[in-house]
Amino acid sequence: MAMKCALSEELPVDEYLITEEPYYVPVGNEVEIFTAAYKNLLPVNLKGPTGCGKTRFMEYMAWKLQRPLITIACHEDLTATDLVGRFLIKGESVEWSDGPLTKAVRAGAICYLDEVVEARKDTIVVIHPLTDDRRIIPIDKLGIVVKAPDEFMLSVSYNPGYQSIVKDMKQSTRQRFVAIDFDYPPAELEKQIVAHESKVDENTATQLVEIGQSIRNFKHHGLEEGVSTRLLIYAGKLIQEGIESKEACRIAMAKPITDNPDLQKSIDEIIAAIME
Amino acid sequence: MAMKCALSEELPVDEYLITEEPYYVPVGNEVEIFTAAYKNLLPVNLKGPTGCGKTRFMEYMAWKLQRPLITIACHEDLTATDLVGRFLIKGESVEWSDGPLTKAVRAGAICYLDEVVEARKDTIVVIHPLTDDRRIIPIDKLGIVVKAPDEFMLSVSYNPGYQSIVKDMKQSTRQRFVAIDFDYPPAELEKQIVAHESKVDENTATQLVEIGQSIRNFKHHGLEEGVSTRLLIYAGKLIQEGIESKEACRIAMAKPITDNPDLQKSIDEIIAAIME
Amino acid sequence: MAMKCALSEELPVDEYLITEEPYYVPVGNEVEIFTAAYKNLLPVNLKGPTGCGKTRFMEYMAWKLQRPLITIACHEDLTATDLVGRFLIKGESVEWSDGPLTKAVRAGAICYLDEVVEARKDTIVVIHPLTDDRRIIPIDKLGIVVKAPDEFMLSVSYNPGYQSIVKDMKQSTRQRFVAIDFDYPPAELEKQIVAHESKVDENTATQLVEIGQSIRNFKHHGLEEGVSTRLLIYAGKLIQEGIESKEACRIAMAKPITDNPDLQKSIDEIIAAIME
Amino acid sequence: MAMKCALSEELPVDEYLITEEPYYVPVGNEVEIFTAAYKNLLPVNLKGPTGCGKTRFMEYMAWKLQRPLITIACHEDLTATDLVGRFLIKGESVEWSDGPLTKAVRAGAICYLDEVVEARKDTIVVIHPLTDDRRIIPIDKLGIVVKAPDEFMLSVSYNPGYQSIVKDMKQSTRQRFVAIDFDYPPAELEKQIVAHESKVDENTATQLVEIGQSIRNFKHHGLEEGVSTRLLIYAGKLIQEGIESKEACRIAMAKPITDNPDLQKSIDEIIAAIME
Amino acid sequence: MAMKCALSEELPVDEYLITEEPYYVPVGNEVEIFTAAYKNLLPVNLKGPTGCGKTRFMEYMAWKLQRPLITIACHEDLTATDLVGRFLIKGESVEWSDGPLTKAVRAGAICYLDEVVEARKDTIVVIHPLTDDRRIIPIDKLGIVVKAPDEFMLSVSYNPGYQSIVKDMKQSTRQRFVAIDFDYPPAELEKQIVAHESKVDENTATQLVEIGQSIRNFKHHGLEEGVSTRLLIYAGKLIQEGIESKEACRIAMAKPITDNPDLQKSIDEIIAAIME
Amino acid sequence: MAMKCALSEELPVDEYLITEEPYYVPVGNEVEIFTAAYKNLLPVNLKGPTGCGKTRFMEYMAWKLQRPLITIACHEDLTATDLVGRFLIKGESVEWSDGPLTKAVRAGAICYLDEVVEARKDTIVVIHPLTDDRRIIPIDKLGIVVKAPDEFMLSVSYNPGYQSIVKDMKQSTRQRFVAIDFDYPPAELEKQIVAHESKVDENTATQLVEIGQSIRNFKHHGLEEGVSTRLLIYAGKLIQEGIESKEACRIAMAKPITDNPDLQKSIDEIIAAIME
Repeated sequence: MAMKCALSEELPVDEYLITEEPYYVPVGNEVEIFTAAYKNLLPVNLKGPTGCGKTRFMEYMAWKLQRPLITIACHEDLTATDLVGRFLIKGESVEWSDGPLTKAVRAGAICYLDEVVEARKDTIVVIHPLTDDRRIIPIDKLGIVVKAPDEFMLSVSYNPGYQSIVKDMKQSTRQRFVAIDFDYPPAELEKQIVAHESKVDENTATQLVEIGQSIRNFKHHGLEEGVSTRLLIYAGKLIQEGIESKEACRIAMAKPITDNPDLQKSIDEIIAAIME
Repeated sequence: MAMKCALSEELPVDEYLITEEPYYVPVGNEVEIFTAAYKNLLPVNLKGPTGCGKTRFMEYMAWKLQRPLITIACHEDLTATDLVGRFLIKGESVEWSDGPLTKAVRAGAICYLDEVVEARKDTIVVIHPLTDDRRIIPIDKLGIVVKAPDEFMLSVSYNPGYQSIVKDMKQSTRQRFVAIDFDYPPAELEKQIVAHESKVDENTATQLVEIGQSIRNFKHHGLEEGVSTRLLIYAGKLIQEGIESKEACRIAMAKPITDNPDLQKSIDEIIAAIME
Repeated sequence: MAMKCALSEELPVDEYLITEEPYYVPVGNEVEIFTAAYKNLLPVNLKGPTGCGKTRFMEYMAWKLQRPLITIACHEDLTATDLVGRFLIKGESVEWSDGPLTKAVRAGAICYLDEVVEARKDTIVVIHPLTDDRRIIPIDKLGIVVKAPDEFMLSVSYNPGYQSIVKDMKQSTRQRFVAIDFDYPPAELEKQIVAHESKVDENTATQLVEIGQSIRNFKHHGLEEGVSTRLLIYAGKLIQEGIESKEACRIAMAKPITDNPDLQKSIDEIIAAIME
Repeated sequence: MAMKCALSEELPVDEYLITEEPYYVPVGNEVEIFTAAYKNLLPVNLKGPTGCGKTRFMEYMAWKLQRPLITIACHEDLTATDLVGRFLIKGESVEWSDGPLTKAVRAGAICYLDEVVEARKDTIVVIHPLTDDRRIIPIDKLGIVVKAPDEFMLSVSYNPGYQSIVKDMKQSTRQRFVAIDFDYPPAELEKQIVAHESKVDENTATQLVEIGQSIRNFKHHGLEEGVSTRLLIYAGKLIQEGIESKEACRIAMAKPITDNPDLQKSIDEIIAAIME
Repeated sequence: MAMKCALSEELPVDEYLITEEPYYVPVGNEVEIFTAAYKNLLPVNLKGPTGCGKTRFMEYMAWKLQRPLITIACHEDLTATDLVGRFLIKGESVEWSDGPLTKAVRAGAICYLDEVVEARKDTIVVIHPLTDDRRIIPIDKLGIVVKAPDEFMLSVSYNPGYQSIVKDMKQSTRQRFVAIDFDYPPAELEKQIVAHESKVDENTATQLVEIGQSIRNFKHHGLEEGVSTRLLIYAGKLIQEGIESKEACRIAMAKPITDNPDLQKSIDEIIAAIME
Repeated sequence: MAMKCALSEELPVDEYLITEEPYYVPVGNEVEIFTAAYKNLLPVNLKGPTGCGKTRFMEYMAWKLQRPLITIACHEDLTATDLVGRFLIKGESVEWSDGPLTKAVRAGAICYLDEVVEARKDTIVVIHPLTDDRRIIPIDKLGIVVKAPDEFMLSVSYNPGYQSIVKDMKQSTRQRFVAIDFDYPPAELEKQIVAHESKVDENTATQLVEIGQSIRNFKHHGLEEGVSTRLLIYAGKLIQEGIESKEACRIAMAKPITDNPDLQKSIDEIIAAIME
C-alpha cells in the first residue's frame, strides 16, 4: 500500500516553553513549596475547584523554572497509549511517535495531568514508576524503558468537590504526591485579577468580586460549585463590550453555573442588589 | 494493495457559508449578546427546549457575522476522532482528513455542537483547550497543535429539561461558556413565524399557536416536553395541503409528542375546542 | 496483498422499485396523509403493534408514489456506518460502497427504518440533518455532504407498546416526524385480508378473525402483545394444507405468542369455542 | 504481504445431506405439522427442554424432506457476520466465504438455529427478512441481496424454561414462526429409545425411565430442569460397560443435573428404591 | 510488508504425552468410571474444590490411557478463537495455527478444560457439537468441520462451591457430561501424599494433615474454601528447608487462604495446638 | 507497505539486575522465608498496605539472590498479551517481542506482579501453569510452550485493606502462593529509615514517625489507609529543603491522604502538638 501524508510535521518541544511571564499573583507560599518539591523530585498534586487558577499557576511555575510545560486534559477515554505513544503513518512508512508523557520525560519537561481522576486506570498506572525512586516510563510497544532526567516533573490536579466513590484516587496513587490546596483568591487579589484581565474599572471589578463571593456562599444551598474567577472575567469583558452590567452578570455568572430556576432567581437578586 | 476510490472530493469550507439571510425574528437582545461574546472570543452556550429556534439562530448569526457555520449533532458514539480527523483512503494512498472541528478551527468558522451533553466525555475534553486562553486544538494523530484564529468561535446547545445526573455538563465545562436562554417565541411572534413558514392564513396561524401554547401547559401534567414551533409549522403545511385541520393537528401535534392515551385525549379536546 | 473477489456485484436501485401493486386495503385516510406529508417533505412515523400491516403499507405507498423503497430493520448493533456506507474490497482494490440510507438519499428513494428505537443512538443522529430544512447526510469517511432531492423521504416505524424508558425516542427526534397510528384492521377488513392471503373460505376466515380479536382482549390480562394478522394467515395456510383447524390455530396462534401455560389454556378454550 | 494457507478447503453443501434415516420415534403429529409448514414456507419454532429430542427431530425431518441440514448453536458472541459470511485469507488472496446461513439460503437447505434466544440482537434481525414475504438475506459486505429458493427453510429452537426477561424473544420475532411444543417422550416410547441407544435390556431401560420420570417431578421442588433422555442413555451405557447400576445412575443422572446436596440425596434415594 | 519471525516453532502433539507414571493414589472407583466413560465416548465433568487433585488425576488417566493431555485453564477472556485457532504470522507469510482444542481433536488427545464455568459463553458453545453424537468441531475461519476420532475425549472441571448465579453451567451444557465428585483425600491417604511430595517425616505429615482437616471445618464459619492438599505440601517443604514448623504452617496455610484477622487467629491457635 | 522504525532497541535482561545493595532493614524473618520459598520453587504473595516497603523488599531480595527483577504494575487494562508478548514492527519487518513475564521466564528472573488483583482475569490465568508443578508459560500466538528454569520465581503483592468482593483473589489463585505479611516498620526502624532517606536529623525523624503513628490510629475513624513511610520521607525532604516543618507535614502527610476537612483538622492538630 502506497501512502502519502501531507500534514505530519512534529513540533519540537521548545514549542512548549513559555517565554513570557504569565500573569500570576501568589496567594500564599505555593511558589516556594512547588519549587522545593521540584528540587527534591517530588510529584505534586494541586487540589481545588474549577477555574481558581491552577492551570495559570502551572504556566507560571514552568516559566519560573524554565522548563517546557506539557498539559494533558484527562478524560475517561484517555488511554495509556495516548500518553505513551503510538505508531503513526508518515509518508510511505510507519514511524513511532512519542505521546505527550513520553515527550515530557525525554525532554525533562513538566508534565501536567489536569483532572487526573477522570482518566482510566491504566493511565494512572503508567505514572506509578515515574513517581517513585525508579522515575522510569516503560514503553511496551517498543520494548524499552526510558529513565526520566532530574529536570522532569510530574504534576496532577484534581477537584475534591467532584469526587464520587467511583472516581476517587487510590491511596497507592495519592500517597505518591505532595498536595497543595488551591481556592478562589481572596477578595482584594481577585479584584486585581478581574480588573487586569477584563479591563473593567476598579469599581466594577469590586462589584463583580462581591457578587462572586455571594454566589459562592450558595454552595451549601444546592449549588454544585461556586462561580469561578474566569466567569467574573467573562462578565467584565461583556460589560466592557457595552452589554448592560446586570444582564452581563446574569449571562456570564448566573446562567452558566446552574439550571435550577430558584437558584437563578436568588443569584439575580444578588446581582440586582450589588450591581445597581 | 492497490486502491481506487471514486467519490472522495473534499468540499471547500465556503460550502458552509450562508449566503442568504435566514428567516429569524429576534425575541430579545440575543443578537447583541452573541455579537459581544464573539468579539471577546467567549464561547457561547444556548440553553432551551427542542425546536424553539436555536439552530435557526445560529444560522442567522453565522450569516450576520459572515463566518462559515459547521454544525455537529452530538451523540453517544461521537468520538474525539470524529471531531478532530482521521486518515482516509484516497485513491491509492492514505491521506489525513480534518474532522469538522479541526476544519472549523483552521477556517476561522463558527463551530456549533448541538446537544453537546449527548457526546462522550473525550469529545468534551477536546474542546477544553479551545475554550480558554490557549484556544488550541491538539491533533494527537499528527503530533501537532493548531491555534485558532480570532475569527473562530465555539458554540454549544443543550436542553436543561432533559438532563439526568448521568448526562449533565461538568462544572469545569459549563464554566467555560456564557449562556443565553432560549424558549418558545411569544405568541405574536410565533404566529408570524408559523404563517411565514407554512403559508397558512393569519387566522389558522393564530389557532395553531393557541393550541401549541395550551399543550405546553401540560408539561407539568406528565408531558415530557412542550410542542415545538416546528410541529406547529408541520400542522400548517398539512392543512395547506388539504388535510382536514383538526386531523392535521392531531397528526402533527398530538401523536408525535406522546404515546400516553390520556394525554392524547386531552390534547384532542384542546384541538377540537380551538380549531372549530 | 493481492485480492480476488468473485461475488461483489452491486445491484442497481431499480431493484428496489415495486412494480406490482401490493395487496393493501386502507383502513382510514392514511394514504392521503402520507401523500400530503410526502409532498411537503415531512418525515413520517408509523406507530402500531407487530404484524398489523405497517410494512405492507410502506410497500403500497412506494408503489403508488413510484419511488424505490429501501427498508432497514433496526437493531442494537446497527451503526451509523451500516447506514451511511463503508469501504469494501472489490477485486484487487478497495472502493467506497454507499450504505442503504445514502443509496436512498442519492436515488431519491423512500427509506424506511423499521423499529427505529431499537437502533443505537448514533444511528438516530444520522437522520437528524435529513429531517429538518437542511435535508443533508454528512459522509464523514469521504469528507462530503450529500443533499437529498425532493423525491427522497424518510419514514420510521415503532411500537409504542414495547417502549421502555431505556428505549424511547428522544423528543428532539420525535418532534421531527408527523405520526400516523396503525392498529389491527377492523374485523370485516381483516377477514378479507386473511381470506385473500391464505386462500381459506369465508367462514374459516371469519372464525380466525374472531379468535384473533378474542385473544387481543387478553392484552390487559398478561399477554404482552395481541396476535398479529400475519399469524391468522399462518393458521389459515396450515388449515388449507390439511392440518386439523383447532390444532392449526394452537400452533400458529396460541403457542407462538406466549409461554405462559395459563394464558395458553385460555386461548385454547377460545379456539375450541369458536372453531367447532 | 505474501500469504500461504495450507488448510482451507471448503466442504460442499452435500456434506450436510443426511443419507441414513436417523432413529426418531414420533410422539404426536409433529412430522405432519412440520411438513405442512415446510410446504407453505412458514418458519418453525421448536419449544422444549434440553435433551428431549429436538435436534434429532430436525435431523429426521431433513432426511425425510431430503434437504441438507445446517445447524448453528447460538450464543452471546455469535454475530450477524458469523451467520452471513466474511472475507477469508485463501493462499495469497482474500476471498469471500459464505457463512452457514447464507450457505443454507443459496443451497435451499434447512437452517436450524439452536437456542436462538442466546444470540445477539443483530443476529435475530438478520433472520427477519428471511421470515416474511420477502425471504431475502441482505449481504452488506458484498452490497448484494440473496433471495431464498422455496426449498430453503428456517427453523429455530428455544427452551421456555430458561427464558429470563433479558433473554426473551421479542414479539416481532416470535410472531414470525409457528410453534411446535416438545417434551420428554412418554414412558413407553422413552424406554424404547433408551434400550435402542444404550443397548441395555428392557428391564434396565424400564428402571432408568422410571427414575428419570421421578426426578422430573422434582422440577417444582428446586430442580432447575428435569433429567434429559440423553442422560438416561448415558446411564445405560455405563451399566453396559460394567459400572454398578446404582453408581452409574448417580454419575450420569444425579450429579450432572444439580449441585444441591439435599436434592442429590433425594435423587439417590429414588435410584436406590427403583434400581434394586 | 516483509515479515520475519525468529521464534515460531510449533511443538508436535507428542509433547503432550505423559511418559512417566504420575504419582496418584485413587480414593474410590474414579479410575474405573473414567475408563468406562472414555470407552463409551462420554464427556466427563470433575466436580470438586481447589487443589484436591483433579489435575493430577487427569494426568494419571492420560498416562494410563496413553493419550496426549492438553489442558486449558478457562477464564473470562478466553474466546472460541483461542480454543479453535487463528491465523498467525510465520516468516513472510500468514499460516493457520490450530488452537489447543482443535489440536486435541485432530490428534485424538484428551482435552481438559479446567474451571470451565469461568469461560465465556461462546467457548462453551464450541464444545456442544463435540459432546453429542456428532463429535465435530466447526472451524468457521477455514470454512471446515473436523470430526473427532474415537480416541478424542473432552473433560471439564468445576468447583461447585464457587458458582454464583452469573457463573453457572447451563443445563443444556451440564446434561452433556457424566459427573465424578472429588474431595480432599481421606486422612490416611493425604498423609501419604504430603510425605511423598514434601519429603517430611511421617509424624510431621500427620500433624499437617490434622491441621488441614481442622481448618476445613471452618468452612461453615466464614472460610470461603478449605485448605488444599497443595498448601499442606507447601508447608512441608518450608519445614524441610528449615523454617520453624508453626511459622511454616502460618505462611503456607493460614495467610494464603484468608484476610480475615479473626479467622487467622483461630487457625493460628489450631496450628499451635497441633504442631507443638 | 514500507516501514521504518527509528527507536526499537530491545534492552538486554541484564538491565534488570540490581548491582548495588538496596537500603533495606528487615523487620522479622521475611528474608529467610522468601529464601526458603525461592529454593523450593514456591511462589510468594506479599500482603500489606501501600508504601510500607514491599517493592524495596523485592529489590533487596533480587539483589541478594542475584537474579534480575522484572516488576509489572497491574491494572484493569493489563492483558495477557501485555504480559506474554506481541508482534512489533521492527524496521521493515514484524518481529515477535517477548512481554515482561515471558522475558522473566526465559531469563530465570524474579517476576513481581505489583497489586495483582487489579489485573484482568485472563492475566491471572496466565500465571496458573507457572505456579504449579508444570512451571510453564504457553505462548498462544507462537504456538509454543516455554518451561521456566529453576531460577525463575513469581511473586505478587496485594493490599488486603482494599479488596472488595469484585476485586478479590480467587481461592484457586490464592492457594498457589505462600503469603508473607507486611506492615509499617516498628517506630525505631522507621525512624532510622526516614533519617537515612530524607537526611533529616534524628530528632526530626523521631517527630515524623510519631506523627505517622498517630495518623495511622485514625484508620478506624474514617481514614481509608494509614500514612506510608514514603510520605514521612517526603515531609523530611521538604523540611531539609527549608519548608517550615509543620507546613511540610501538612503538605506531605495531611493533604495527600484525605479530602475530609474534619480528618485534616485532626491531623493538623496532631502535627501542631508533636512538631513544635
